[in-house]
Amino acid sequence: MAKKNPITDEGIVVVKFGGTGLVNERIFLAAQRIAALKRKGNDHIVAVVSAQGNTTDELIELAKSINPDPDDRSLALLVSIGEMRSCALLTMALNALGVSAVALTGWQAGIRTNGKGYLDARIAGIDPRAIHALLNQGHIVVITGFQGGFIHDNVPEIALLERGGSDTTAIYIACIIGAYECVLYKDVLGILAAPPDVISDPEVLTTISLGELEETTESGAEVVSAHALAMLRESKCQLVVRPMFSDDLGTFVTLAPEHDRIVSSITFRPEIALVRIIARRRFRTGILNAFTKGHINIYLRERNNFTVGEQDAEKIKNILTDRGKELNITRYSVQTGFVQITIVGEGMRHTPGVLSQIEQILKENAIRSSLCSTGEISVSYVVRKARYKKAMNALYDHFFRNPT
Amino acid sequence: MAKKNPITDEGIVVVKFGGTGLVNERIFLAAQRIAALKRKGNDHIVAVVSAQGNTTDELIELAKSINPDPDDRSLALLVSIGEMRSCALLTMALNALGVSAVALTGWQAGIRTNGKGYLDARIAGIDPRAIHALLNQGHIVVITGFQGGFIHDNVPEIALLERGGSDTTAIYIACIIGAYECVLYKDVLGILAAPPDVISDPEVLTTISLGELEETTESGAEVVSAHALAMLRESKCQLVVRPMFSDDLGTFVTLAPEHDRIVSSITFRPEIALVRIIARRRFRTGILNAFTKGHINIYLRERNNFTVGEQDAEKIKNILTDRGKELNITRYSVQTGFVQITIVGEGMRHTPGVLSQIEQILKENAIRSSLCSTGEISVSYVVRKARYKKAMNALYDHFFRNPT
Repeated sequence: MAKKNPITDEGIVVVKFGGTGLVNERIFLAAQRIAALKRKGNDHIVAVVSAQGNTTDELIELAKSINPDPDDRSLALLVSIGEMRSCALLTMALNALGVSAVALTGWQAGIRTNGKGYLDARIAGIDPRAIHALLNQGHIVVITGFQGGFIHDNVPEIALLERGGSDTTAIYIACIIGAYECVLYKDVLGILAAPPDVISDPEVLTTISLGELEETTESGAEVVSAHALAMLRESKCQLVVRPMFSDDLGTFVTLAPEHDRIVSSITFRPEIALVRIIARRRFRTGILNAFTKGHINIYLRERNNFTVGEQDAEKIKNILTDRGKELNITRYSVQTGFVQITIVGEGMRHTPGVLSQIEQILKENAIRSSLCSTGEISVSYVVRKARYKKAMNALYDHFFRNPT
Repeated sequence: MAKKNPITDEGIVVVKFGGTGLVNERIFLAAQRIAALKRKGNDHIVAVVSAQGNTTDELIELAKSINPDPDDRSLALLVSIGEMRSCALLTMALNALGVSAVALTGWQAGIRTNGKGYLDARIAGIDPRAIHALLNQGHIVVITGFQGGFIHDNVPEIALLERGGSDTTAIYIACIIGAYECVLYKDVLGILAAPPDVISDPEVLTTISLGELEETTESGAEVVSAHALAMLRESKCQLVVRPMFSDDLGTFVTLAPEHDRIVSSITFRPEIALVRIIARRRFRTGILNAFTKGHINIYLRERNNFTVGEQDAEKIKNILTDRGKELNITRYSVQTGFVQITIVGEGMRHTPGVLSQIEQILKENAIRSSLCSTGEISVSYVVRKARYKKAMNALYDHFFRNPT
């Protein structure tokens, strides 16, 4: 089943362990999972690790107790020790099990960031030579997630990646070293059809298409970083989200849809503000530029109506008030207290009438949508915060529990 | 007073803070000391930091709880995070005080080790360009002590230095970047004339010569690493051991003796085994080689008698038993329970009769010496463990409290 890697002529597996899976004696469970993979004939394994438990948040708190506004460079150094710690410990645990392992920091593993900053950096590339050399020497290679480096004025600098950086690291490495499989071990049973804090006991998806996962991720569910998913399209790597604490197979992420359901997931983005604008002709470019300059993300747009995060509401009001005349705006309103629901499914591409099904359900439940935006395999509605759980449950019941 | 540095044309000061001086809010005290130095006109300051408090020991314990015999490479990575942590935090504390600071790991600072291992490494050299560049940009440069790096198979590797590695780092950096002063902040008032656990309230030395300090260090007092002191001879750098928690000036380490006392310090090495050998001619090279191969350090030697650490006693017995015939040994004895006392002083060089003074004092106190070895500015006696405190106190009283 294992595809051969073009460089090493062997199958490589990349596994990634989240922070909750590395706390205290759980580090041995992670080591045992790797040892079991090796016993099954996987000779080339790379393990990517997050910081243990809440280490990252604790280190950020520690920094702020010293300096309320710590500089990015020192903060990156301080926070990076969280992954170094779990990387060294998992390596020791593997060696204790008699499985030869070597620890590499992101820097040592050849992970280079775009050099635009010490925080929220993106991977610019990976020089895989160190990883390949160690794999070929028969070691498991354990690598710190969430960090890489760049060269600034001849000094090797440490940079932290964006949120979800350990997943990104694992997927990037898997794609670049030609792994046939990348397994993300998480403390859930796999990718869920809906958020469990809204829908009780949602279905664990057996498969999800890459397109659906991208759409779900972009719609607010922090499953796997969208940035990393783009890499997967170009590779032959199989991404799997698998539970850390059970033997279930988890969710396989497929290039093309391998299921015949219409809807794959229902997700939401909380704390949305709704912006409505009445303006004379040709206002739009100016407004969009003004929003971009103010670092405001626009989530959805339907004609002259937009959604943005509630945290940007005041900023938007100021921009619209200050520059209203110049931007040809007659009137505007900025309302907070909304939630954006997104329904994702490859099946929507060639199933007519899904939209009318959805709107029928919203109508039956007396839920008014303030804005609707449709994509190729997704549709989003903006509803009042007080109504979104009811809306999501009604939609989930329709598409998952009582499919027609 | 500040000498000008040939490269930056400015005086550079290197300060080093020990672990006890960096715990919790003490990190602000360290930052304030640096800020005060800057206010006094020192524009170029490098700060070298140890790990906070007992962090190093705690990390070693943690490693051993995962793997009783952790591999050197992972252990070096794990332990190195201790200094990274205090380095990042001190940098943040300085920035909080409005003093611009930048954190560098040993690797980033250009500290290269001899590449012979991940633990107990020695500094092979320092590329000072990163440090100079940051100093010239007006930053305080904060550097992790106790660690450096080497390149192995194109991978940048992290290595820990020998014990006392943070002092070594500070002194090395000071010498190589041409600092006019290197201040080691410690939790003592300076270099003491004798160990305070044996002599109550020993004198704090105002000055000590480099030769005396080397001799004292080699005789068991872990004041400053001997390895680092060798660097100082070739430089113009003034080494100072200064208290962290008082405004006392501490001890200045001078190239030539700047005092007229005969004895400068009395120190001891505990847990010594005494090896006596009776052998036919030409036994010595063979025995010394056998000891070297067994990684046994010989501290003192007087004809066919040696001292070694008690931990090596069994190993020595095995060597002498196994290879006795081959090495022409007739008889031998290995006795434990000894302590080695060393009296150090440049004044001994040209003061006749010091040896007889010492032996008179030992005799008056009924202390029998099992072995005596004299150096140019030191003399060592091996005495029974039960008697060493009495011997040291008598010697201390004679040379420091009631000098004749």
